[in-house]
Amino acid sequence: MDTPLRIGIAGLGTVGTGTLRLLDRNRPLIAGRAGREIRVVAVAARDRGRDRGVDLSSLRWYDDLSLMARDPGIDVVCELIGGADGPALDLVRACLEAGKPVVTANKAMLAVHGAELAELAESRGTTLAYEAAVAGGIPVVKALREGLVGNRIRRVYGILNGTCNYILTQMRQSGRPFAEVLAEAQELGYAEADPSFDIDGIDAAHKLAILAALAFGGRPRFDAVHIEGIRHVAPVDIAFAEELGYRIKLLGVARMTAAGLEQRLHPCMVPGDAPIAQVEGVLNGVVAEGDFVGAVVCEGRGAGAEPTASAVVADLVDLARGCAPPVFGVPASRLEDHPVAPMSAHEGSYYIRLMVVDRPGVLAEIAAVLRDHEISIEALIQRARNPGQGVPIVLTSHETREAAMTAALARIATLPSVLEPPRMIRIERL
Amino acid sequence: MDTPLRIGIAGLGTVGTGTLRLLDRNRPLIAGRAGREIRVVAVAARDRGRDRGVDLSSLRWYDDLSLMARDPGIDVVCELIGGADGPALDLVRACLEAGKPVVTANKAMLAVHGAELAELAESRGTTLAYEAAVAGGIPVVKALREGLVGNRIRRVYGILNGTCNYILTQMRQSGRPFAEVLAEAQELGYAEADPSFDIDGIDAAHKLAILAALAFGGRPRFDAVHIEGIRHVAPVDIAFAEELGYRIKLLGVARMTAAGLEQRLHPCMVPGDAPIAQVEGVLNGVVAEGDFVGAVVCEGRGAGAEPTASAVVADLVDLARGCAPPVFGVPASRLEDHPVAPMSAHEGSYYIRLMVVDRPGVLAEIAAVLRDHEISIEALIQRARNPGQGVPIVLTSHETREAAMTAALARIATLPSVLEPPRMIRIERL
Repeated sequence: MDTPLRIGIAGLGTVGTGTLRLLDRNRPLIAGRAGREIRVVAVAARDRGRDRGVDLSSLRWYDDLSLMARDPGIDVVCELIGGADGPALDLVRACLEAGKPVVTANKAMLAVHGAELAELAESRGTTLAYEAAVAGGIPVVKALREGLVGNRIRRVYGILNGTCNYILTQMRQSGRPFAEVLAEAQELGYAEADPSFDIDGIDAAHKLAILAALAFGGRPRFDAVHIEGIRHVAPVDIAFAEELGYRIKLLGVARMTAAGLEQRLHPCMVPGDAPIAQVEGVLNGVVAEGDFVGAVVCEGRGAGAEPTASAVVADLVDLARGCAPPVFGVPASRLEDHPVAPMSAHEGSYYIRLMVVDRPGVLAEIAAVLRDHEISIEALIQRARNPGQGVPIVLTSHETREAAMTAALARIATLPSVLEPPRMIRIERL
Repeated sequence: MDTPLRIGIAGLGTVGTGTLRLLDRNRPLIAGRAGREIRVVAVAARDRGRDRGVDLSSLRWYDDLSLMARDPGIDVVCELIGGADGPALDLVRACLEAGKPVVTANKAMLAVHGAELAELAESRGTTLAYEAAVAGGIPVVKALREGLVGNRIRRVYGILNGTCNYILTQMRQSGRPFAEVLAEAQELGYAEADPSFDIDGIDAAHKLAILAALAFGGRPRFDAVHIEGIRHVAPVDIAFAEELGYRIKLLGVARMTAAGLEQRLHPCMVPGDAPIAQVEGVLNGVVAEGDFVGAVVCEGRGAGAEPTASAVVADLVDLARGCAPPVFGVPASRLEDHPVAPMSAHEGSYYIRLMVVDRPGVLAEIAAVLRDHEISIEALIQRARNPGQGVPIVLTSHETREAAMTAALARIATLPSVLEPPRMIRIERL
């Protein structure tokens, strides 16, 4: 057996302490598989005094992260601090500058600074590994970068935020509104006190930008992701989705189109019998479609101390075994700057819900607007129950361009018989 | 970019020609990701004259596989001949002896000779890669050997044969009997003219032995797999399963028990809402349960030229990138000889179907036998429709030992009111 791989862990929150526990609990097993011991020798965190339930007494403590980065007694630094910028970014830059490989769970940093960091790592002959940054314990980074490496990826999509998936699942199962289910999720600890990072789609969009970079060999472009969260998903839409054979999921989708790389994160209707529709509760799921392999579906726990620690340790064992594939699957210097497909160029099907006055002729008006924008209707549900008052009309379209749909909805919103702003949810054909 | 990785392909059947096509079609993409060109320089097959729809004119042709193994102009040999022994095994041994890495899709060879070949490879400082041997294009070997490497695996199970899954799915959806659906599958090309290798579970058992070796760090032991195929699955059992909330799948399950390593491949009832129950048609699915990661589910196409080629190329790119983890996840010399848990020691729940005379007291007799064997009943379906004639009784048990169930069924079979041999299907708790 070789010499130990000496690890420094920066950040002792949920993931950091989880990683310490895993490396301790499965020590001989991991050493046997890695061919050498993986030994934590140093840690760094903000508050030295706090009790984290793990014994740190034998480890070097760093208050100054730049000293950890330069410690020649550390072979790999695990950056588990978080945040796109600030101390996490400074630490990772300093480590890579010093030629020290980094393992990180930091999706925000990778989605924003990933290309720069990959270039820095490769220029210094070292690497940056981040299995834990996407979908927690599911080895989806490895699947895209290695397992499906022979394939041209057509599309990659997934449920990338467990909090949102939990809320949508609960809303569907109980019929209750968003705010009520969110409050319950906060009580149960499935949602943060400030939930916006999750429910507005930011967290999932970070992960999508990373998946897209891996799938299409491009520089991660978080700023190019179209993002819509789940605040506006209403129980009535969930019920109509069910009736139409769909489920509503917060989906991240990346695909290459004639207009460029499309990256979008928004509530989606997916066929109820599709594998991704079955990914429920706090679970995450990712589907990659390759030209030879077809669709590969991976599902599992996307967050939490233990699954995330599992991914961190997978990266450490890769390093211990001497495996360091290119950060985003191709040499960083060859990462492409794909043109960004604007959402107006998106082509797909749509679910539209309108609240209209229940009187003759309303449907004809709406149909005329859609016809004028060359949008054809696939299905329509109209249940007149309230003569002279408001009733919902729901319709789904055949494939059309988002620009046409946006224009049609703007026109429809001005019709006197339309009482509320139209609600639109994209349908993803799987 | 480095020098090309020079490949020899032995065997030009479905997988061999698929691999040639993939390497040709995605050549620049693969070279970019691998950091070097992956170039096929030589091929070998039985019949040189046959038209395979791929251009072989620029490639060296070997009639003698031992010469291919020793060709210093070949860096990696892909063994795509198949068969546990014979020319495939001779070729792989010769390559590894010569220090040449081998990529193979040969599940039978690995399940039977895997430990010997891993030892040989490691003693010569080379390696043997086999992503294509299990579940086709799904990167499940990589997931177990690398992605979940930090975890103690509790259980690994999966749907490992697409032909059987197609037949069971069709039987469920159409209510038709096994023989009829098999005949149709043969016409459609989903089942071989001689289907026994698939439907009797041999093919899936090979894959299970490999998964178990990876999951538990043991020598592959195909001979230790308990195997039952799907010939005896009846439409009536599929219908009762549905009624009880289950689906019947041909499942391979490996888990470590107090009695040793349990490896079993047999029709199973699984909860209808479990992810593995949703894996339908020709698809394969594998679930690995780790102590930190929880359950990770992977689903995709498990056979066919294109998905299998995808897996072969993934192994080639790993080699091109210089990644060669231990063959079964730990050094071959440290692979364990796990004690084999006998099926009699299996603990689980059971589905039992009896054909009995429809008269008072029959159920009491059966219940008494079960009680005598300390088996407790969980659910029971009895629909008397045929006084004095045969009616089915279906029951499910709570967790019990297989030895007790076997003894109870032997006793029940002797009761005068029991008209047919009892049918038993194991229930897997997920």
